[in-house]
Amino acid sequence: MLRTSYPTFRSLVEKGELVRVAGAHDALGGVLAEQAGFNAVWSSSLEVSAARCLPDASVLSMTEYLDAAANMQKALSIPVIADCDTGYGNNLNVVHMVHEYERAGITAVCIEDKLFPKLNSFAGGDQTLLSTEDFCGKIAAAKAAQSTDDFFVVARTEALINGLSVDEALERAHAYVDAGADAILIHSKAKTKDEVEEFLSRWDGRRPVVIVPTTYPEWHVSDITKAGVSVVIYANQGLRATVTSLREAFRTIRQDGDSTALEGTIAAVTEVFDLQNLKTWQTLDA
Amino acid sequence: MLRTSYPTFRSLVEKGELVRVAGAHDALGGVLAEQAGFNAVWSSSLEVSAARCLPDASVLSMTEYLDAAANMQKALSIPVIADCDTGYGNNLNVVHMVHEYERAGITAVCIEDKLFPKLNSFAGGDQTLLSTEDFCGKIAAAKAAQSTDDFFVVARTEALINGLSVDEALERAHAYVDAGADAILIHSKAKTKDEVEEFLSRWDGRRPVVIVPTTYPEWHVSDITKAGVSVVIYANQGLRATVTSLREAFRTIRQDGDSTALEGTIAAVTEVFDLQNLKTWQTLDA
Amino acid sequence: MLRTSYPTFRSLVEKGELVRVAGAHDALGGVLAEQAGFNAVWSSSLEVSAARCLPDASVLSMTEYLDAAANMQKALSIPVIADCDTGYGNNLNVVHMVHEYERAGITAVCIEDKLFPKLNSFAGGDQTLLSTEDFCGKIAAAKAAQSTDDFFVVARTEALINGLSVDEALERAHAYVDAGADAILIHSKAKTKDEVEEFLSRWDGRRPVVIVPTTYPEWHVSDITKAGVSVVIYANQGLRATVTSLREAFRTIRQDGDSTALEGTIAAVTEVFDLQNLKTWQTLDA
Amino acid sequence: MLRTSYPTFRSLVEKGELVRVAGAHDALGGVLAEQAGFNAVWSSSLEVSAARCLPDASVLSMTEYLDAAANMQKALSIPVIADCDTGYGNNLNVVHMVHEYERAGITAVCIEDKLFPKLNSFAGGDQTLLSTEDFCGKIAAAKAAQSTDDFFVVARTEALINGLSVDEALERAHAYVDAGADAILIHSKAKTKDEVEEFLSRWDGRRPVVIVPTTYPEWHVSDITKAGVSVVIYANQGLRATVTSLREAFRTIRQDGDSTALEGTIAAVTEVFDLQNLKTWQTLDA
Repeated sequence: MLRTSYPTFRSLVEKGELVRVAGAHDALGGVLAEQAGFNAVWSSSLEVSAARCLPDASVLSMTEYLDAAANMQKALSIPVIADCDTGYGNNLNVVHMVHEYERAGITAVCIEDKLFPKLNSFAGGDQTLLSTEDFCGKIAAAKAAQSTDDFFVVARTEALINGLSVDEALERAHAYVDAGADAILIHSKAKTKDEVEEFLSRWDGRRPVVIVPTTYPEWHVSDITKAGVSVVIYANQGLRATVTSLREAFRTIRQDGDSTALEGTIAAVTEVFDLQNLKTWQTLDA
Repeated sequence: MLRTSYPTFRSLVEKGELVRVAGAHDALGGVLAEQAGFNAVWSSSLEVSAARCLPDASVLSMTEYLDAAANMQKALSIPVIADCDTGYGNNLNVVHMVHEYERAGITAVCIEDKLFPKLNSFAGGDQTLLSTEDFCGKIAAAKAAQSTDDFFVVARTEALINGLSVDEALERAHAYVDAGADAILIHSKAKTKDEVEEFLSRWDGRRPVVIVPTTYPEWHVSDITKAGVSVVIYANQGLRATVTSLREAFRTIRQDGDSTALEGTIAAVTEVFDLQNLKTWQTLDA
Repeated sequence: MLRTSYPTFRSLVEKGELVRVAGAHDALGGVLAEQAGFNAVWSSSLEVSAARCLPDASVLSMTEYLDAAANMQKALSIPVIADCDTGYGNNLNVVHMVHEYERAGITAVCIEDKLFPKLNSFAGGDQTLLSTEDFCGKIAAAKAAQSTDDFFVVARTEALINGLSVDEALERAHAYVDAGADAILIHSKAKTKDEVEEFLSRWDGRRPVVIVPTTYPEWHVSDITKAGVSVVIYANQGLRATVTSLREAFRTIRQDGDSTALEGTIAAVTEVFDLQNLKTWQTLDA
Repeated sequence: MLRTSYPTFRSLVEKGELVRVAGAHDALGGVLAEQAGFNAVWSSSLEVSAARCLPDASVLSMTEYLDAAANMQKALSIPVIADCDTGYGNNLNVVHMVHEYERAGITAVCIEDKLFPKLNSFAGGDQTLLSTEDFCGKIAAAKAAQSTDDFFVVARTEALINGLSVDEALERAHAYVDAGADAILIHSKAKTKDEVEEFLSRWDGRRPVVIVPTTYPEWHVSDITKAGVSVVIYANQGLRATVTSLREAFRTIRQDGDSTALEGTIAAVTEVFDLQNLKTWQTLDA
């Protein structure tokens, strides 16, 4: 089958089982995540900007992030959840963003409470937050802009990233739910899961919680589930594996002077063809 | 430095040393090839289409192939040579292609003597060639369309791919040089380098020869050089390494239930930041 | 309301009244056609290529034609029918085209039985047709590729454009219907409507007929309806009016040395704001 | 000739004669402006957003504005000056913008001292200015980012649009020149040219001044020149003429029931072909 249909992200969350999500920046990464058994794909701003060798700092435009997300979704039978940073500006930008992403078949987006332009959460530098009131305005604008009931808006608080307390994170999360958020993403760059765990233990459960365990990779899904998490995103491991493998492969060819050593360790060309669904496409060329 | 300058592809060829080229489909792959010491980057149709999980069969449009090539070139200080398949149609399409690629800063393109729409050379199926006369028309149209002297047009013959003889390949190559080609790419899907070697031994040396040793990976650069090759393209090994590493990384996370096992084996987030030139960009944000 | 919903093109045809369609190349033209009372908008290849000052000869890519059609549809509450030329290549290209257009919210496309790359029907030059069998293959491929029942594929025969007889046009039209076409577009560049009228008088009515009265502009809608036409497309009059008005406006400013003479004859800036729905957007910026 | 070369915008300004510029949003408008004798084309944010029926409020992305400007420049033998609003964000966005526009062959950009996201200057609403210091940072970032000496950065002050005094406008303009601006655009929405004239009479002439006489259309070029203006931009008259002509053409067809009345008053199809350079392109198809 050349063209896929896919469930909405909302339908996955409503199943009540932990939704496991992998980050990607192109259809190939997305399809490999799907084949590995992930339930959804995170169209990661870090990955999409890194693929361009540009900083994850609102430098690429919404058009470019949308194209990446849409091109992934076209190839997948699992839903994409799009990392939409701050919503690319103010309320008007958020509304336009929802129009464009929903039209493109994306069923879930995530916006965060930093100022536009934002800087990657792990990059240090200025991580100033938008006021709670203004971010609630964005959430409300996004929800009012969607045309299908299923469209799913995740509100991400960067309170902990900005050095604020779990109290502040909870206060913001409550306000975001009141404003209409379908889920809360609580992000942390701490070396341990402690502050996220505290957040979860104090969360009232009004909406599902999403986490991104980049800096606390040892947190096992069974414990994540017990802690009350609904969605876990492995946001950038695929990209980081790609960097390492490309570095290795190119160095091998360059140093050896031929590519013999790679054969057998890298995918065959026919494996690439399979990922392109070549055989099915060839049946069309009667 | 955030913005790179780069030599033309022609200037590399004119140095007289073997030009070593790696295939890529995005800026990240291109930059890693550059860091490994390659002299140029092949914007590969197989890679670009595989990144979309679509067949390498002229399904993606020139716009999409051009965007990929241009986005690579923006991040590189080595030149991109763009795999332009058949030139995307007839003479008019070739002329438009040269206008667009040259404007986008690409200094070399490669067009091949198959019919539009083409099918990947390793994919079997129909590999019918355009008549020599008509392909010479395309080469002449391309050369007449370029606006800078440096722009470099590689004519690729698929004679061997189509099961024709080395005689036919040589005949076509001679005609293509007469039509204005700046170099000849001789492609083969044989398990050994024999037919390419025969081509080289009988080549009159009027123009540089380019090879793509995908199916004869053991051919060492020192022997390639002795055989009279000017440019060697490792066209898709990076993509194939990426497929394997993504498959592994996603399987590990999915099976282990956490990403601990990957830590230390995959690039750190800070390594990604370096590839994004983050520190230099941050200095701008005074 | 900032975001429109729209009926499918099929639903308009099934109403049984003449569907009146105007050509456009951007959202502004489409919205003005809608405001004038047209039922649908023809995303015209001639217009889209003319807006780029490039020939209507398959030089622009599917990506560019799709973007134009999609951007129109986003602004409209009437459906777009997209002029997709030959389907941009062979069966694979047609299938990919249907996937992309349908995903983008387009509910009707038109493909024609000329060779790729095509040349505008009024431009003289080569207007060779694809074999009936091969074009039927494209129609069948398109219909098999659609994912919603409503998607509507118009098969356009250029038999008369190519100097062939009404007999040949009818024979092809019958075959196209057998292959699954949802409607037949019969095109003519004759100075009178005679050959189109003959086609209609001999048509068996199995599928709706679409006409494009560019060279026989005096044919009134009441007579068109009586002749059995279901859809009439005024394909390029808007573009031609635009050319004249821009020429006039620029000449006036250039010759007068100021723009006083234009004031009152051209739309006010506030009228532009209204077409942008500015007031509604401003309400979002709380 | 299918491909144009063009002077830099800087070279026009340095001639010392009044540079007359017309606004456009696509290549067709640009070419008609060139044919009418204009010296350059303003890629207008108002026009580009209006063509999409979206507000001129930083809703479209840099990608979309850049594509519009680049597509115009490709068809022109006069330079485009790109209306880049606020530079699409902060210093990083400005730097990226300069990289992208310069690569695309654009030789002049204009940035303005409002906050991102901006609102059209005639639209009322919030027109708050960025601090002088921060806008000077943007200008300096832009100038440091350019790779050719010729690249030309116009600094536009919206002081008068924001209700501030000519004193404030002058103070800002002086600072912008100190920061490296190549020219100053002084914008006003007053019904008369008085405040702009006062600005000019008090301007020290260190850099050329650009004006946009939308609301004081009667100001004749000979007086504009005497007042010390170097560049005059007729920013949106073409768009406004287009709106009127499309409205008229569509209404005529809709009301008459045929398009007879338009014939003779609108451009012939062959005139469109000429704007597409069809004959020259056809010579390529040997």
